[in-house]
Amino acid sequence: MAAPTVNRQILLAETPKGKLDQSHFRLIEGSVPVAGEGELLVRTRLVSLDAANRAWMQGATYRSAVEADSVMAGGAIAEVVESKAPGFAPGDLIFADTGWQDYAAIPARSATKMPKLDPMSHLLSVYGIAGLTAYFGLLRAGRLKDGETVAVSAAAGSVGSIVGQIARIKGCHVIGIAGGKEKCDWLVRELGFNQAIDYKAGPIFKTLKAAAPHGIDVYFDNVGGDIFEACLFNMNLHGRIACCGAVSQYDGAPSPHGPRGVPGMIVVKRLSLQGFIVNDYDDEREKALTDLESWVASGQLKVQEDILDGLENTPKALIGLLAGENRGKRMVRVA
Amino acid sequence: MAAPTVNRQILLAETPKGKLDQSHFRLIEGSVPVAGEGELLVRTRLVSLDAANRAWMQGATYRSAVEADSVMAGGAIAEVVESKAPGFAPGDLIFADTGWQDYAAIPARSATKMPKLDPMSHLLSVYGIAGLTAYFGLLRAGRLKDGETVAVSAAAGSVGSIVGQIARIKGCHVIGIAGGKEKCDWLVRELGFNQAIDYKAGPIFKTLKAAAPHGIDVYFDNVGGDIFEACLFNMNLHGRIACCGAVSQYDGAPSPHGPRGVPGMIVVKRLSLQGFIVNDYDDEREKALTDLESWVASGQLKVQEDILDGLENTPKALIGLLAGENRGKRMVRVA
Repeated sequence: MAAPTVNRQILLAETPKGKLDQSHFRLIEGSVPVAGEGELLVRTRLVSLDAANRAWMQGATYRSAVEADSVMAGGAIAEVVESKAPGFAPGDLIFADTGWQDYAAIPARSATKMPKLDPMSHLLSVYGIAGLTAYFGLLRAGRLKDGETVAVSAAAGSVGSIVGQIARIKGCHVIGIAGGKEKCDWLVRELGFNQAIDYKAGPIFKTLKAAAPHGIDVYFDNVGGDIFEACLFNMNLHGRIACCGAVSQYDGAPSPHGPRGVPGMIVVKRLSLQGFIVNDYDDEREKALTDLESWVASGQLKVQEDILDGLENTPKALIGLLAGENRGKRMVRVA
Repeated sequence: MAAPTVNRQILLAETPKGKLDQSHFRLIEGSVPVAGEGELLVRTRLVSLDAANRAWMQGATYRSAVEADSVMAGGAIAEVVESKAPGFAPGDLIFADTGWQDYAAIPARSATKMPKLDPMSHLLSVYGIAGLTAYFGLLRAGRLKDGETVAVSAAAGSVGSIVGQIARIKGCHVIGIAGGKEKCDWLVRELGFNQAIDYKAGPIFKTLKAAAPHGIDVYFDNVGGDIFEACLFNMNLHGRIACCGAVSQYDGAPSPHGPRGVPGMIVVKRLSLQGFIVNDYDDEREKALTDLESWVASGQLKVQEDILDGLENTPKALIGLLAGENRGKRMVRVA
């Protein structure tokens, strides 16, 4: 194979003030970087698309902000082309923030070696950040107990679709909240959710109350905003809310205020809210992966992936994800 | 002593829509009730005034709402006049929800026998709901660790003034938030707070940031609203917010929205919010009282009480408390 010479890179051309669109991105052809000492030259294979990508454009979160005119940040599965670090060899698969580009030179310490799995995409869905986020968010942050009533928003998304299925495996009554009848039907028919509520059909408070007449014990929040509020007011005494994300607040001007009932309802119902990101539970990663693998093997956990092709389609993939067009884990196959 | 014949009672004449004032109350002279089987006839001695009294008028919380034209509800220290229940005798002191009246007939099971202390008022302040709420809220809900940075709102109030002092005893850096320079000076000079911020002097976000340059680890929230928001944005990673009350939302039309950054900031900083009421920790009551007594005995914990005289002044006492005119635990001496 001839040495690669062109490195397609997608830049965040401009920090979006409102809704993200194609004009905020620019594709350029840069040069293939050279790995320095302690670095790896990697070729991007599968880019992970996440609502968090949009949040990074708003400012510092658990990572620094993505600035205009730099390569758009993003996690990916990549293949080592050249290694100048011990422990890595050409052909190894890694997970790292390569950014949206064909090639990246990254410090070896920021790369996580990945097993070779078929399909490789499972490394980004059920055994990747999505699966582990669902697992830890529900079981650790949410302290789920068998048989409880669970609600999850963005339920047809990469994390939500796994949250609901794990809760079913744990014998819980599961209510999914998603946009559109088609997604809702799919949650119930294919993924075994007990009920699904279409938030695009109107305000959900009453539907939710009818779906959970004895209240919600654990709400897994991916969206914030009005849906967070509707769930907050349907929580049971000593309920738990696992705060995973707030996608309703990412794309467009953030709402000037948060939901009503905070913190009043938190006192009245003695709720616990726990914000978390998946890395908070790194110590228990192996146990989580073992559980996820056994559920996939037994057919109790269905893996839903939504793969687009071509680096140039990455902006479109993210814009569509923010509009809710994906089911399950969205990614872009680059090579 | 001749048998009492008149029972002064203060009714909630009307459920307030906006700010509470005297017109919402009415004093009537009723008859002294008769204790039935299993009941106690008690004489009210000291009525406890709490911001929660106002919240009860808004609807069901952890108790049912106080309805218009009924005796205003409220906890009090009372003396048993007649007992038709085993375990209680005339002269015993109890704590119960007697309501705002001279005499009440109450089921013995809803009365808690109290030791005879001098001064009796300590049963409502440091060894009562205020002291225990501060203790459990800070140490259990807030999971305080020695040496952390703590912020507390309504810091000159019954709960807040004890929260700050306990945090100092635990070697923490304590920032109080209170209304007015005089209260703030008192918090620092008399109670040993490290700093105090006057929220009436302007928005507190920047002052708070300057007071806690390394961020806040535990915020004890008594007020909700804008102060909650300012603290939320100054929290450290893995900070904890003990949600005790939301007095800013009780008196007047409740704000249509909650603070910004909920739940977004909860994720970014992996905060824990824990709503609680003092009864959630009944099992550990003895240990708490032992600690509080030893701190009072050693002079590390100063007891601040604010006692008014006369049942007829109870409405004024509550209205004033909601306006922030008290320091420490407010109560009304009835007999």
